[in-house]
Amino acid sequence: MTPGEQILYETAEKIYALEKQGKKILRLNIGEPDWRPPASAINQVSTALRKGHDKYASAAGEKELRERIAQIHQCRSENVVITPGSKWGIFMLLAQQAKPGENVIAFSPHWTGYESMCRGIGIRLQFIRLKEENNWKPDFEELTSAIDAGTRMIVLNSPANPTSHAWSEREEKELISIASEKRIPVLADDAYRDLCFDGRPDRPFTEEIRIAHTFSKTFGMTGWRLGYIIVPELLARQSIAFNQRSISNVPVFIQEAGNRLLIQKKKLAAKARKNCQARAGLAARMLGTKTEMVVPNAGFYAFPKIPASIPLPAFLDALLEKGIGVAPGPAFGNNPHHIRISLCRENKVLRPALEKITETVEEMTSSAT
Amino acid sequence: MTPGEQILYETAEKIYALEKQGKKILRLNIGEPDWRPPASAINQVSTALRKGHDKYASAAGEKELRERIAQIHQCRSENVVITPGSKWGIFMLLAQQAKPGENVIAFSPHWTGYESMCRGIGIRLQFIRLKEENNWKPDFEELTSAIDAGTRMIVLNSPANPTSHAWSEREEKELISIASEKRIPVLADDAYRDLCFDGRPDRPFTEEIRIAHTFSKTFGMTGWRLGYIIVPELLARQSIAFNQRSISNVPVFIQEAGNRLLIQKKKLAAKARKNCQARAGLAARMLGTKTEMVVPNAGFYAFPKIPASIPLPAFLDALLEKGIGVAPGPAFGNNPHHIRISLCRENKVLRPALEKITETVEEMTSSAT
Repeated sequence: MTPGEQILYETAEKIYALEKQGKKILRLNIGEPDWRPPASAINQVSTALRKGHDKYASAAGEKELRERIAQIHQCRSENVVITPGSKWGIFMLLAQQAKPGENVIAFSPHWTGYESMCRGIGIRLQFIRLKEENNWKPDFEELTSAIDAGTRMIVLNSPANPTSHAWSEREEKELISIASEKRIPVLADDAYRDLCFDGRPDRPFTEEIRIAHTFSKTFGMTGWRLGYIIVPELLARQSIAFNQRSISNVPVFIQEAGNRLLIQKKKLAAKARKNCQARAGLAARMLGTKTEMVVPNAGFYAFPKIPASIPLPAFLDALLEKGIGVAPGPAFGNNPHHIRISLCRENKVLRPALEKITETVEEMTSSAT
Repeated sequence: MTPGEQILYETAEKIYALEKQGKKILRLNIGEPDWRPPASAINQVSTALRKGHDKYASAAGEKELRERIAQIHQCRSENVVITPGSKWGIFMLLAQQAKPGENVIAFSPHWTGYESMCRGIGIRLQFIRLKEENNWKPDFEELTSAIDAGTRMIVLNSPANPTSHAWSEREEKELISIASEKRIPVLADDAYRDLCFDGRPDRPFTEEIRIAHTFSKTFGMTGWRLGYIIVPELLARQSIAFNQRSISNVPVFIQEAGNRLLIQKKKLAAKARKNCQARAGLAARMLGTKTEMVVPNAGFYAFPKIPASIPLPAFLDALLEKGIGVAPGPAFGNNPHHIRISLCRENKVLRPALEKITETVEEMTSSAT
């Protein structure tokens, strides 16, 4: 386990132990939407199964789904490979694009997954630290000087988990241009892209990027394991062969449900996005005065910094005492005073929880001074 | 692509091209049951989805399913890890147990998957050739002398694809004892185990073996991607971490359907097995006089050797001309005169197909002499 995983694991275990003692814990530590795919998707699964669409299938994914995705991202269906979640897509791309000893660059605060994947494969993961005081904006000089002869990929983790901050389109362009100049591909981890509050369009595919996307967040389908990558054709063929020798294929009945959802993507994504934006606004208003927090512009996390005078472990324990679980900032890099709050609950649950968090900050600030 | 994959790919492409020209081809080249899981399993998927059992879940698999599997294989649930197919289980075990440069031993004729996995990981795959004239029985002296300091695993691929031959329990024991003495784990690839015609019991887990099993063949669920491995606890924990950083988890609604099927395993496996045995008998009677063929004692393939005087490519083309696709022997190792026929069709389709194969052998034998 990486340190980040260890921290998340211990948090989950602590919550589990408390629950076993009969305590009720609101699990705001988990990054999972509270919305679900519409009934039409679930019905599609039954229909497909009854039709016998449950046999071995293409390791590339179903033609219809690949074509629809190609249309969305303005590329050829030959660029698209269906994966069991974007996690698998990222894992497969890292394993193919970097060899042990080589390195990959990502921006921190960061998703714990990158670290465990890179460690598993033997790749060195280099972080460029984004600063809260700069509103999580990237410093491109720092990026340029971090790139070396062993750099094989740069991860554009925007919108980022845990910050819920999305780069501007101008910043994204600058990153891609710096990387292209050095002939290093950019991996756009677009898990939260559809939840940018500015409603930006689907990312068009170009040869210098590799897109990893998932149905998990946009459609609330985390456990369905459905995602895709969009990559240059040669890499797509290699990725199809990688699928073929490992996972075979994503179940066709799941792909058919996904295909149905993409038809309604604009509408469903807009609904999820509005939901997220309202919750982010609520969190900013309620936490803003007691913590330091960059107001999120995407996704469903709040990532506030509590006063440095409060020891984080004691703060987390106090929250658990009040029945609230959140994820500790150190799980996502060098964030000793941050917490990640998943905002995926309806207002009547979320509001009192945020209130308790603010209260706890107040209580522990006054007791610390 | 490995040579084996290349051959299978070309066969599939040839069939596809003929179909595009309007020709109807009976695809006896694909190793996929024609039976399907009962409606109860399909209904369970809908029920689980409606209940919202489609969220992130344990990378180890669902507790209930692991416990049932543990009961079946006489081990602890901590030994069991749920995987998307046994292919993933084998891939993950190979990747964890052998490093590039080290080697793994398997018996040939063999499943093409081993070669592509080992090549992908960088492991050397050593084959022990089983001989038809010995009824595919293993030569343990040859095995002993093949083991060297770099050997990290021995694959017990029995019942084997493509031969549909299962080792006797005594032979299996001897293999395991030789391997144990050298402290090399045995990987039991049990994909076809439930289809042994002698109806042997579920394999009990012991510390010196790693079991990879799948729902694909027994229950006719190839496209569901549901399987499991049973391994020592430390390796199970490592495999769970491997799942966690790559595929996350198998969808819970699929696992629940699988759990339901295991309750009926004895009955469903017996039915599938009888079906297979009848078809193997039919194939042996119809092909036996014109080809050399060890009568299968498991699974659903026939793997006859056509007379050496007939060039295999011409024979395969002649079969395609008559609307029958089979898999070429060279896809499964050094079998220049064999073909693999999947017997997964009802009698009224299978019988005339086998007749045409026999006819073709006759025609081409007389034209060759």
